[in-house]
Formats: sequence, C-alpha cells, structure tokens
Amino acid sequence: MDIQLDNVAKQFPAEWDGERVAKAQTAFFKALALEAHRFYGGKIQVLPRASLPGYAWLNAWYTPGVSSVSTAIRDQADASFDLSWRGNVVAVLSDSTRVLGDGDVSPPGGLGVMEGKAFLMKILGGVDAVPICMDSRDAGGRNDPGIMVDFVRRLAPSFGAVNLEDISQPNCYRVLDDLRDSCDIPVWHDDAQGTGCVTLAGLLNALKVVGKDLAACRIIFNGAGASNTTIARLILQSGADPERVAMFDSKGGLHAGRSDIEADPRFYRKWELCRTTNPQRLDSLAEALEGADVLISLSRSGPDVIHPDEVRRMAPNAIVFACANPVPEIYPAAAKAAGALIVATGRGDFPNQVNNSLGFPGILKGALLVRARKITDAMAVAAARTIAAFAEKQGLSPERIMPLMTDSEVFVETAVAVARRALEEGVARRILPLEEVEAVTRRDIADAHKALELLVQTGLIPLPPREMVERCLQQAIACS
Amino acid sequence: MDIQLDNVAKQFPAEWDGERVAKAQTAFFKALALEAHRFYGGKIQVLPRASLPGYAWLNAWYTPGVSSVSTAIRDQADASFDLSWRGNVVAVLSDSTRVLGDGDVSPPGGLGVMEGKAFLMKILGGVDAVPICMDSRDAGGRNDPGIMVDFVRRLAPSFGAVNLEDISQPNCYRVLDDLRDSCDIPVWHDDAQGTGCVTLAGLLNALKVVGKDLAACRIIFNGAGASNTTIARLILQSGADPERVAMFDSKGGLHAGRSDIEADPRFYRKWELCRTTNPQRLDSLAEALEGADVLISLSRSGPDVIHPDEVRRMAPNAIVFACANPVPEIYPAAAKAAGALIVATGRGDFPNQVNNSLGFPGILKGALLVRARKITDAMAVAAARTIAAFAEKQGLSPERIMPLMTDSEVFVETAVAVARRALEEGVARRILPLEEVEAVTRRDIADAHKALELLVQTGLIPLPPREMVERCLQQAIACS
Repeated sequence: MDIQLDNVAKQFPAEWDGERVAKAQTAFFKALALEAHRFYGGKIQVLPRASLPGYAWLNAWYTPGVSSVSTAIRDQADASFDLSWRGNVVAVLSDSTRVLGDGDVSPPGGLGVMEGKAFLMKILGGVDAVPICMDSRDAGGRNDPGIMVDFVRRLAPSFGAVNLEDISQPNCYRVLDDLRDSCDIPVWHDDAQGTGCVTLAGLLNALKVVGKDLAACRIIFNGAGASNTTIARLILQSGADPERVAMFDSKGGLHAGRSDIEADPRFYRKWELCRTTNPQRLDSLAEALEGADVLISLSRSGPDVIHPDEVRRMAPNAIVFACANPVPEIYPAAAKAAGALIVATGRGDFPNQVNNSLGFPGILKGALLVRARKITDAMAVAAARTIAAFAEKQGLSPERIMPLMTDSEVFVETAVAVARRALEEGVARRILPLEEVEAVTRRDIADAHKALELLVQTGLIPLPPREMVERCLQQAIACS
Repeated sequence: MDIQLDNVAKQFPAEWDGERVAKAQTAFFKALALEAHRFYGGKIQVLPRASLPGYAWLNAWYTPGVSSVSTAIRDQADASFDLSWRGNVVAVLSDSTRVLGDGDVSPPGGLGVMEGKAFLMKILGGVDAVPICMDSRDAGGRNDPGIMVDFVRRLAPSFGAVNLEDISQPNCYRVLDDLRDSCDIPVWHDDAQGTGCVTLAGLLNALKVVGKDLAACRIIFNGAGASNTTIARLILQSGADPERVAMFDSKGGLHAGRSDIEADPRFYRKWELCRTTNPQRLDSLAEALEGADVLISLSRSGPDVIHPDEVRRMAPNAIVFACANPVPEIYPAAAKAAGALIVATGRGDFPNQVNNSLGFPGILKGALLVRARKITDAMAVAAARTIAAFAEKQGLSPERIMPLMTDSEVFVETAVAVARRALEEGVARRILPLEEVEAVTRRDIADAHKALELLVQTGLIPLPPREMVERCLQQAIACS
C-alpha cells in the first residue's frame, strides 16, 4: 500500500463483503494510530512564530523589554489578543468523559482526540490549538459540571476561544450554557453546535436536491443527546415548522407529556423541545416516520437501529441522516434499497460524510479574527449556509451534498461568513474589513501547509516507516 | 543598527554615562517589545510534529483510528506520555500576581512573559511549552493559593510538567509545596528553584575563583522572598554551614527570636531558616556583612540598596550577588571599587549574569525524558553542579563564572545530570539510557533551531522591519 494510504479498502481480499472490509479498515486505522502516535510522540509541537535574528532579541521577547507588554495588557486587557498568541489560539478542552465511541476514558485518555483536533485546527483553519484534558471529578469521584465551568473561566484569560469536546450528558448542557454566558471569549461546543452546523448544511443541500422546502417538511429526530437537540434547535431556527418536528429518545417521543424530563432541571434543553415540538404527542418512532420527509438519527451504533421497514414508510425522496459512530443506524445501501434518495452518515468511507471538521476550523478562525466575545446560534447558522452554498457551487447530487475537506476555500468562506455575522450582531471586539478576514485566513491555512511540507522535506519530521503501515495492514487482515 | 541588535549600547551618544545608557537600552527594548509583539501577534505557534502523507492519515490521527490511543491511555495512564505530546510538553503557568518587576498585572497581563518562557523552552531545551495565565481570585477578588493548587491538579493530566512562575508571596510557597506533594508530574517553581539552581552554580564557581571553601564561608542573604529563601535552602544542602549563614528581610535578621514570622504559618519556609541559621541573632545587615565572604542580595531594585561601605566591611576577595531587577542593589563598578572581587547580577549587560534561562530548559528536558514524577532539590543541586562544571571547563575568571546561553551543550549536560539523578532517586517512570537522554536532547535543540531558520529562510516567519528597530531606538534616545 502507498504511504498516502489511498484506497485502503482495496487492500483487503476481494471476496470480503463491504461490512467486513469496513471492519478491517477500522482495525487497520486503530493499529496504525497506536504505532504512529508512539513513533512521533504525539501530533503537534510548539515552534516560534517570531524570528530571533540574534540572541539580543531575547531582551525584547523576554526580560527586560517584555515588561511593556505586561503593563500594556494590565492597562487594557483586550491588548492581550494583539500582543500575544492569544488572538489565534484555542483551547480544545474536554474532561474525557465521553470520548468519541469510547465513553469515559479517564482524564488523560482524551489527549489523542484533543491533540488530533488541534492538528486539524492548524491544518484546516490556520488556528493554533492546545489540547487540554482536565479532571472534573469532585472529592467523591463524580464529574461535576460546576468544577468544569470554574476551571474554564479561570483558564479563559490565556485563550482566544475555547472548544469544548466530548463531555458526557447532562453535564455538557450546563457547562456550555454557563460558560457562554459568563466568558467573554467564544465557548464552542463542537459536539453540539459544530455537529448542528454541518448537519444543517447537509440538510439544506439535501432539500435542494429533492426540491423540498424546509418549512413544509416533516422532520423526525431519533436520539436526544447534546448533538441532536442542538441540531434540532438550529434547524428550527432556520425555518423548520415545530409542529412538523418530533424527537425521540430511548423512552419515546419528546412532548409536553414527558413529566420525567420536566422533573429533571438538568435536561432543560430537552424540555424546551418537549414544549415546542410534537404537538401530536407521538410516542412511536415507526409511526412518526410515516410520511416523514427527513430522519435525523444520532442515537446508537448500528446497524439495525433503524429498520428498512421504517424508512419504507417515509415520504417519497426521503432524506436519512444516520450519523451514529462508529456504525450508522442503518447502512446507506439498506436505506436506499428501502426508498431513501439521500443518505448521509458520519463516516468518510460512505458518500455524504457529515463531518464537524468541515465547520469548526473556519468558524473559530472567523471568530478569532474579529475577537468575537461569543459564537451565537446565528453565527453557526451563517456558517451552515456558507458550507451548503460552497458545495452547491461545486454541483449537488444525491451522493454529494457536502463539500470536501481537502478544499480549503470552504474554510476561508466560512471564516468570512462568521466574522460578518459577528460584526452584525455586535459581538466582535475588532472591526476588521472582511477582505482582510479572507486574506489572513487564506494565508494562515496556506502557511500551515507550507510549514508542514518544509518540515517533512528537510527531514525534521520523518515520514512514517512503510514497514509500520504494512505490518498494521497484515494485522488488520489477520484479525478481521 | 544591525537587525541582530549587536552592540545596542554603542548606539547611544558617546558622552552618556553607563547608567544613562543602561536606562536608554531598557527603554529601547521596551519600545521594541511592544511593536514587535504586535507585529508577530505573539511569539509561538502550534505546528504538526507528525506528518500527513495524505488526508487518509486523518483516519489514524483522528477518528476512527485514534480510539485505540484513547483506550490504551484509559487502561494505562502512563501511556499518555508516549502516545501524545504530553511526554515533551510543559505548562508555563502563572496567576500573573508578581510578573517580573511589574507586580500584579491582571490575569492576561502575564501572557507576554509566559509566552517568552515558552519560546525559550523550545529554543534552548527542545521542550514544547504552553503559556497559561490563570485567574486565581476568589469571589472577593483575593488571590487564593488553594484555587491555584486545585486548578493545576485538574490541569496536570494534560502536561508532562508544570513550570510555575511569578506568583506573589506568600501564596507561592503553599502552591509549590502542595503541588509537589500531590501531583505525579514535576512542578517546578522557576523563580525559586530555578533561581536557586543557577545562583548556586554561580556561587560554586565564584568560590573556585577566590579559592574558598563553601563550608567555611560566612554567607549573608539580603531579602527573604521565595527566590532567596530557596537559594539559601539549596546552598545549605550543598554544604554551607548554617551557623555562618544569616538572612535579612525588611524587618531585620531572620532568627529564632522572630515571633512575627513564627506566628504566620504561611511563612513556614522563612521560619525554617529562622530556626536553623543566624544563631547570633544579628539584626543589622551592615553588622552581619563585617568579614562576610559572600553577599547574596535579591531584595529591591537599586542602586544604593547596598552601600559601598557595607561591601567594604566584607572579607578580602568578597563575592557579591546583586540580583534585583531591573537595577542591581549596587552597580558592579561600585561594588568592585569597594573591594568585591566578583560581582554577579541578573542583567545581561554586565558580566556574570545569573539567569534562570541557563537552568530550566535542560532541567525540564531531563525530567521529561525519564518521565520524572517530581524534581527534587537534589536534582536541582545536580543541575547546578553541572552548570558550574560546564563554565569551569571553558575557563573561569572573576568576570566569567557562568556559562553562556548561546552554548547549547550546557543544556544537554544539564538534562543528562537531572535524568541521572532522577533515576538514582527513583522518581523516574522510564529507565532511559543516559546516552539516549543526551542524544535526544541534542537533537531536539538542534531541530528547534533548524525549524526556526527554515521558517525564516522561506519567509513563513518574516524578519522584523528594520524601520521598526530604528524608530524604537530614536524613541529611546529621545526619552532618556
């Protein structure tokens, strides 16, 4: 296999079916991840952004000269964004209690994921990012959202934004909402707002492909976690009709009769949806799907969580988002066979990947460049519309409703859209011409790529040994 | 003036005296710092340490492959040092309550200094570092050491070591001692242990030059802050005779009669010295200096804090460390005229600069490489002896008792000495051959330099505009 890892799927025995290949592919990437992370000792490093023409410059970069920077910031706190790296740096922060598919992996357990996000932040968005996995447990060993809120508020003076990640429910709601209110830098919850933003982008394009109007669609949500409730909120804000919307959790439909949700104040976000949607008080997902135009499922790993029969009951040209990880609730082929026209998943090995990485790099870059105080839902919706429009320009089809991550212009356009909206909403500290937002974003992304190329070309970053890749492949074949 | 800033002192009118030149030089570096920090937007950035031969590698660096990293760390926490950047990354952490000479500069106010330290950490030691200025204030606005301790403990799972910095007294004692006990990564207080280490190194060499024995010397300390009390502790541990040692604070001598210190448990470190030193209960610094061999002063900015007459009373071949910032307690020329043979200061524009930057990069690198659980005083003393021996190999003189920061081999040797001592003391998690500590340290420092050169050569990091340097110089001349 090539070191680029092109066509991994082709490396497996030809007689294997799709499911077995998918499993083997995952096993390959897991084995490779373990070896390659050890080989490099992680994925990111700190390097200078300023030159050092001679050691005498340390008198400006450090003592005695830096004193003027300290006092300038003391006298005007916002100067910290211009006089330090704060203006371009994000904390990727988790308490590691719900890390991707692996649940609670102990505080340091989330480092691989958060460092990966920091890597993406730089390569895709030209944003510096620092992975921080904090211990949010109280004396009794329970993860306490109040502890996390306090921690982030104390950390905030050092960063331009905070990207929260992989926090278990229901703590994540309170953490995000408290921090959005109390921090004067953006606090972005990528699992919720980020997923909401890219899912909305995909839905907008899917509706264009099938020629349906959002306000007229019947939209069913399966799963009521932080991601799906936020997706619903953004979709409702974008014009969906709450009377045609219904959401389901493991106990049935969310509606005004759900006293269990009403009784637990930690689930206030779910209760909002109970009060505003599903006036028919539907309690059966299968029933609700009868004639529905859209299913958005973020529930639990499939397949067979959604049955082909349920898809079959949907309206013509149905749209199915089956976004559970690592396995969609129904495989795209099965959903299509049951009549869905457009199927999206969270996976890169099927068409229409709904991938947060399409959103956060540009969103955070735009927010940072205008020194935004927060990222409002309207800024997230503006990002979604931009991402959707970008894909539309490249041509939509049932197999292509999302842009590709390899096209960095989508991040440039998103940054501009987010900055524009921040300026309109009055949450920007700095009035920056949008042409400058565009130029700086484009330059910073290009520079990150150039720097990486340079470090590799000169051998400062070695290529991974081919033998390592080969060994992991054989291991994946043997165990699949 | 050259862009390297060589010979800044020569840029000022020839008729100016040394003091005026020194002031103008400081004014120049302060003006330049402000402009240059704004020009670059800080001093550090995050870049990949791993390659990305193709976008398919994101399946290993991020989801789904990274899951194996999460679960490996969950199952064995120490794997986090090998599978993420944790093994080479230090948090440079302050609450910005006593930032260099500027005191409390509000939480973000310390970012310039901490980022400067992160810059040095990479260039001098090949260590990645993240500047964190946290808000340690309680609801009443008072800086609370307990809050800081709790914060660092929650942060610790993300870092290989913590470098505490610029925390006001007396909070700094409790913060450091609590954290050293409760964290399983090194917590280094550079203002205290770092200054102690390099001062001890300088003293050891000064004694070689004058041919005196540490145990026989009468040593007077002026100032009883965190730095000087730690310097005294390390010097006593290295063989000084407590009966020949006396320390002074603003109220007089530290001795067993100081009930004010005994009464305040927050000053337990000062009380230790009261109990063990100055049995004569001397209360006058001038009197104590009568016949003293060594004066170590870290008190308040001079000149004229130490008077020439006081130096004149010292023993022949007296050694004076006048290390207050920004101005020494007595200028070297004045101290020498009063009979001192060796004078050291904290400044780079006089001979014998006692500079923490000679210590922390190698110390932390060595500690990180063996995954040390802490940095003991014995490790700091080992570092001091190595730094001293390094300068000795290059030849000692009254004007040259310290190594130069530009000679990166001192950091390599220090890392090896610290790693060796960590292995001997049983605080290392990883048994690494010392040849490997040496080779990796040398490579990582060289790589940092190469990477910076490369980024500058290719224009990814621009040189500072010559016009900016010139403008700052004219400004400094005009106002001095």
